[in-house]
Amino acid sequence: MEQKTSQNTTPSTPKGFRDFLPEKMRVRQYVTEVLMDVFESFGFEPLQTPTLEYASVLQGKYGEEADKLMYVFEDRGGRKVGLNYDLTVPTARVLAQYQGKIPLPFKRYQIQSSYRAENPQKGRYRQFVQCDVDTFGVSSPLADAEIIAIIYTALKRLGFLEFKIRINSRQVLFGILQDAGIGDKKLQLSVLQSIDKLGKKAEAEVEEELTSKGLSSDGIKSLFEAIKKATPDENLAQMFSYLDQFGVSRDCWEFSPFMARGLDYYTGPIFETVLEKPKIGSITGGGRYDDLVSQLGGPNVPATGTTIGFERICDVIEELGLLRDELEGNRGILVTVFSLELVDQSIKVLNLLQESGNNVTLYPDPNVPLEKQLSYANKKGIPFVVIIGPDEKEKGTALIKDMESGEQETVKQENIGKAITKQAIEFGTKAVVVLG
Amino acid sequence: MEQKTSQNTTPSTPKGFRDFLPEKMRVRQYVTEVLMDVFESFGFEPLQTPTLEYASVLQGKYGEEADKLMYVFEDRGGRKVGLNYDLTVPTARVLAQYQGKIPLPFKRYQIQSSYRAENPQKGRYRQFVQCDVDTFGVSSPLADAEIIAIIYTALKRLGFLEFKIRINSRQVLFGILQDAGIGDKKLQLSVLQSIDKLGKKAEAEVEEELTSKGLSSDGIKSLFEAIKKATPDENLAQMFSYLDQFGVSRDCWEFSPFMARGLDYYTGPIFETVLEKPKIGSITGGGRYDDLVSQLGGPNVPATGTTIGFERICDVIEELGLLRDELEGNRGILVTVFSLELVDQSIKVLNLLQESGNNVTLYPDPNVPLEKQLSYANKKGIPFVVIIGPDEKEKGTALIKDMESGEQETVKQENIGKAITKQAIEFGTKAVVVLG
Repeated sequence: MEQKTSQNTTPSTPKGFRDFLPEKMRVRQYVTEVLMDVFESFGFEPLQTPTLEYASVLQGKYGEEADKLMYVFEDRGGRKVGLNYDLTVPTARVLAQYQGKIPLPFKRYQIQSSYRAENPQKGRYRQFVQCDVDTFGVSSPLADAEIIAIIYTALKRLGFLEFKIRINSRQVLFGILQDAGIGDKKLQLSVLQSIDKLGKKAEAEVEEELTSKGLSSDGIKSLFEAIKKATPDENLAQMFSYLDQFGVSRDCWEFSPFMARGLDYYTGPIFETVLEKPKIGSITGGGRYDDLVSQLGGPNVPATGTTIGFERICDVIEELGLLRDELEGNRGILVTVFSLELVDQSIKVLNLLQESGNNVTLYPDPNVPLEKQLSYANKKGIPFVVIIGPDEKEKGTALIKDMESGEQETVKQENIGKAITKQAIEFGTKAVVVLG
Repeated sequence: MEQKTSQNTTPSTPKGFRDFLPEKMRVRQYVTEVLMDVFESFGFEPLQTPTLEYASVLQGKYGEEADKLMYVFEDRGGRKVGLNYDLTVPTARVLAQYQGKIPLPFKRYQIQSSYRAENPQKGRYRQFVQCDVDTFGVSSPLADAEIIAIIYTALKRLGFLEFKIRINSRQVLFGILQDAGIGDKKLQLSVLQSIDKLGKKAEAEVEEELTSKGLSSDGIKSLFEAIKKATPDENLAQMFSYLDQFGVSRDCWEFSPFMARGLDYYTGPIFETVLEKPKIGSITGGGRYDDLVSQLGGPNVPATGTTIGFERICDVIEELGLLRDELEGNRGILVTVFSLELVDQSIKVLNLLQESGNNVTLYPDPNVPLEKQLSYANKKGIPFVVIIGPDEKEKGTALIKDMESGEQETVKQENIGKAITKQAIEFGTKAVVVLG
């Protein structure tokens, strides 16, 4: 009974919110680092906006459904504020607020949390990291191609081997719809939403949906035929040639005329990436949205960009245990403390190991028996343990213990940096697993 | 009139919340990177907690004053939640929630935003990054010394030359108070708060304050005398000897018997760092707090650690223009696009530059005249511009223009990586300014 009470009062995070303990943090840091590195190599610059925005900036931008999922409240001054729902609306605000101060083209990336009060479910969280890369102020398909080159480079760098970037164009689709006699903009967008479901739903189901939207059975058939026969327009063809120049492998992208993207605001090329192995669906989504920034309260600037599914990528890496060994290298080395009298020896070896570029954990309590320190290393999965006892002190040596194999090696203290690095490389080589 | 209206509606961030445009972000990324690197080199592990906590986790932990500054609200499910006010309370929750799953000692660092509805003023923001490094589960002064070694290493690595880490011990201070006949715990803490002001306020003022707390004039005099003559106790002496072993230079720390720290919860060694040049006061603060984690709802574990003043450090670096040139290196290279026909040449050179490890901005619009592309480089402070026109294409070369000196150099395209790196190093060497 008492235990139950105490369990009930165990503090926890609110539903849909997560702690990231070190092991998970390492995956997130690794993914962040790779992405930032790629963005920076293309000259994209970092931007960060605050967690709180005025509610007036956030609301009424993405429809009622989104407004319902926003964390909006009154602060102590009675001002209505909210947690950022995505990164596009805050960026549109930045472009409006600093107009004239940010030179265009503005190539920026933004990796930070967004907040949505959705029903938590597998892979869906109320606080989640979004990663957006966009170019503002350029209409040329060169900018679109560059975004795709970034996606390609980032996924390769993350170790994904089999993925396909599906590319299409809203202009191509609108042209086909126009030719099919569907001229009303609203109906066009509604039809595109149905067409976008073709990959996920049965053709009959999509046909039914289109019928309910007022299309005739013959009309639907000839529409599907027309899309099937679609070819890239001049703008898209130009973009494809840029992809070759950027070195984006032809195996990794395809012209995908039925891919329409769900959101209304795209105006030109659209693209999404499907991971084929493991088969987990789309991990990037984006395209050109020349009218959106001004609709969101920003200046009238053309824009193109993509979201990279940060959470999904981290989940995949973690679920499949990929990179486990690459990350293991981070767990480094435990320098034990033999006794109160020998603390100086341990600190000396710690310094030597750090100087040779190693991350080292000193066991920070000389009152704990060595045996317990070793079991600590085991619990934490630390691959190497260093021991300096009275014998080692006398001879100026240190004992390195490989916790996996149990093998031990005695080395001169001044050589310990080199010795561990050598072992770590051997360890690393035998253990590296390539993703995919 | 119309303009005024449009100005009034220019969107902005809520008071006390900030955007970080690329230039500021680079400073923050640099400081974050250096700190993380140092923490990891000592085997400290990353932890991240969510932005939202249950209000019951946050409230009533640091007194009424703090509760008034918390962003607390009801979510749509009617649950009271709040934005994290600091990183210590969430960590105490983590230690309680994952008890038994996190092996002790737990050495963790945490760098993330906290939120306080304070009156915004220079250097004080409502959303600010906190940086905490702590060891949980160890009573030994070795753990305290290690925290100080981390502070020392981090500040050195950030380029600060003249700073002093002031060290004292609550145990020493409590002993002196006891000897002076001040035995009541509450009075002891109140007296310590006054004594801590001695560096900042006139002695007479502090004496007055102590008188109002019931101390006699003679009592105050002999108390000051006793503190002046204070010597480290055994625990502190042990810690000092560890500092030597860690290689913390004697010039950078001092036993500072009047330094008492403001917060009530410290139980052992306490330490803070004062930057002497530029003279901006304290940039780190911490100490041992063996009872706090359980008071905050966590398990009963000893703890020691420090806060590093992330925002203050970034402000100093920025205000003084320090690191400007080091960060300039990040702005890299602009590859211009001469014309629609020569886009392939520019992408080729972009690829070559990236392969040799450079961050490169491709001007993503071939329809913009070269002149405008050059003025874009100027506006953004990009030091190098690369041009490939028809002549260069024919000869397989590229023109590198140093935007500062105006000097130009023509190099073979395949050598451009080396050529730019050489120039950048020369540029870097002449421009590097060391902080301090």
